[in-house]
Amino acid sequence: MTPLVTLLTDFGTADGYVAEMKGVILAAAPGATVLDVTHEIPPHDVDAGRLALARYWRRFPSGTVHLAVVDPGVGTSRHALAVASGGHAFVGPDNGILTPALLSGHAEVVTLPVPASAAPTFHGRDVFAPAAAALARGEPASALGEPFEDPVVRRTPEPRRLENGAIAGEIIAIDRFGNAITNLVGVRGGTVEVGGVALPMARTYGDVASGDLTALCGSNGLIELAVRDGSAARLHGIRRGAQVLFRPATG
Amino acid sequence: MTPLVTLLTDFGTADGYVAEMKGVILAAAPGATVLDVTHEIPPHDVDAGRLALARYWRRFPSGTVHLAVVDPGVGTSRHALAVASGGHAFVGPDNGILTPALLSGHAEVVTLPVPASAAPTFHGRDVFAPAAAALARGEPASALGEPFEDPVVRRTPEPRRLENGAIAGEIIAIDRFGNAITNLVGVRGGTVEVGGVALPMARTYGDVASGDLTALCGSNGLIELAVRDGSAARLHGIRRGAQVLFRPATG
Amino acid sequence: MTPLVTLLTDFGTADGYVAEMKGVILAAAPGATVLDVTHEIPPHDVDAGRLALARYWRRFPSGTVHLAVVDPGVGTSRHALAVASGGHAFVGPDNGILTPALLSGHAEVVTLPVPASAAPTFHGRDVFAPAAAALARGEPASALGEPFEDPVVRRTPEPRRLENGAIAGEIIAIDRFGNAITNLVGVRGGTVEVGGVALPMARTYGDVASGDLTALCGSNGLIELAVRDGSAARLHGIRRGAQVLFRPATG
Repeated sequence: MTPLVTLLTDFGTADGYVAEMKGVILAAAPGATVLDVTHEIPPHDVDAGRLALARYWRRFPSGTVHLAVVDPGVGTSRHALAVASGGHAFVGPDNGILTPALLSGHAEVVTLPVPASAAPTFHGRDVFAPAAAALARGEPASALGEPFEDPVVRRTPEPRRLENGAIAGEIIAIDRFGNAITNLVGVRGGTVEVGGVALPMARTYGDVASGDLTALCGSNGLIELAVRDGSAARLHGIRRGAQVLFRPATG
Repeated sequence: MTPLVTLLTDFGTADGYVAEMKGVILAAAPGATVLDVTHEIPPHDVDAGRLALARYWRRFPSGTVHLAVVDPGVGTSRHALAVASGGHAFVGPDNGILTPALLSGHAEVVTLPVPASAAPTFHGRDVFAPAAAALARGEPASALGEPFEDPVVRRTPEPRRLENGAIAGEIIAIDRFGNAITNLVGVRGGTVEVGGVALPMARTYGDVASGDLTALCGSNGLIELAVRDGSAARLHGIRRGAQVLFRPATG
Repeated sequence: MTPLVTLLTDFGTADGYVAEMKGVILAAAPGATVLDVTHEIPPHDVDAGRLALARYWRRFPSGTVHLAVVDPGVGTSRHALAVASGGHAFVGPDNGILTPALLSGHAEVVTLPVPASAAPTFHGRDVFAPAAAALARGEPASALGEPFEDPVVRRTPEPRRLENGAIAGEIIAIDRFGNAITNLVGVRGGTVEVGGVALPMARTYGDVASGDLTALCGSNGLIELAVRDGSAARLHGIRRGAQVLFRPATG
């Protein structure tokens, strides 16, 4: 089976940086299938990359190689990592972007050597793409570097359960549609308050009238706020970090 | 031959939704070739998706599977469809986006069952991607669901022939370059009026001076308004729905 | 080995133009691997396309076919080209976008015939995609058209060495991160002046404090101006064409 290599970056595509990486991978791993996840992560937004990676990596077949490079610290002393986790392999900087792989079961982590010839501004091309190609050729992550014990982990803030039974959470992401994703998970019924407004929970976007704000359970299990046929973020000024409150249905 | 699966959505790429779909398809149809058409359809713009699909589907080899998901009604009672048409297969919501396949000869249409486990906000991942994978594995559309007689069809407005011989049309799309695509087709010579200005027909963009507005026959046979080296939409305030008038050359 | 075809355009993806090209290529060269470089070159920006192509083409394996279409003169008398250079093949309009291939060793250049059926507004689909498919099937560029002696070459402006030993250059591109790429190459130490401010040279973005402007050697050897964790272009109003001055370290 042809090995799959997925690519997530904040590079955009217009400058040719991503194409350089694709060339490096395909020159070193002929026959690999290179798949774009996205190159539109907002520049330097490690958490956005981390949340996207959390969504998709397990959907791919076992053996897939995932490159995830959002790397404001490129060329500094931050480590470069390869990770084996859950039957998948990962490469990326040690800044928390690989957290979804690190937190999953028995992750094996190594630090990738940075060759003297690597451009200090572009490890995507000179460190991570060659490592992804090696993994795509079937080399184990453990063969690519020295074991590493203490990778950076970035966690989504945990919701807090209040004395009155409510749960205080926050907005952790705004998606393409302007839906505001919260860190609330596993709650049902009740209402979600944002900006002083209490919203009943709906099942899907079309369950409310066009233009109405509602709360519902998103496709990854997190509660989100959405406006039917519109952008909750824009219409209601909801931003990342905004507070939300879940109140369970009473009696 | 490796089966082709094309993807058109309004999801953007940064949130990881498209990657989830790619993972689902490749896990269920190993070896399939997944091709991005676009994920930049404006959110919820079913007609933009429909017009794009009309452009490209016939260009692909027979047997290609086309996934087209612009789906503001996801999770409601709208049907999910698979279509066999013209030697190609299609999956998408029953909101008119698949019209180009439905209007082409003997289209066979089935409704896809929605499993209870499907997220009501993401049929792209839980209904359409698995169906696309099944089609890519060679299953016929007819095996995927129950026959369906009355799919939603959305039509481009027809131009009207006026008593004086002129033809009244409208702008149906603005493209990336700011070219304004009309619903006028098969007209030659004469002039196209927009906003009170009569434009002679040119053959290509470079036939007029830089900055000049002109009318010409686009690559899909529709008349379009364009500014050489500029955006007709921005420079002349032309929007979707604007009226245009074709006047044939006289005597 | 499956032939690779890379695609660079200014078409965006939403209108379906790129998908038409992909369909044409895959119908005529079944089994080819079509790779997106970018479709986000700013409309008509031939130099941006040329600079991107210069970055990536050599990274791909020998035998790769590179399609590069930024083509404001489509349908006029400008020639359509195929080029064999450095073991790679190229197709694109004769407007300078293929300069990186033309300047590399013994480039072989032919003009592609334009069939009467080609849409005068879309040679990407009707001239360049079929030519790319023919090259992907293994036809040599020389078989696709008549030899051509005088293709358009566009060059990045050369820096000028001043009498006082300084080197005067300019900004030739702004990248996705707002980094301002200069035409200065091969300089080390010293300072780079822009807008009256003298910047010491750093090694990588993280070598200065967050928000600080610095100069460093980019991954393709060109000096660039960058703001750590920010956009040099936006924060300092640096634009393409802005003057920069390199002063070597004294004594």
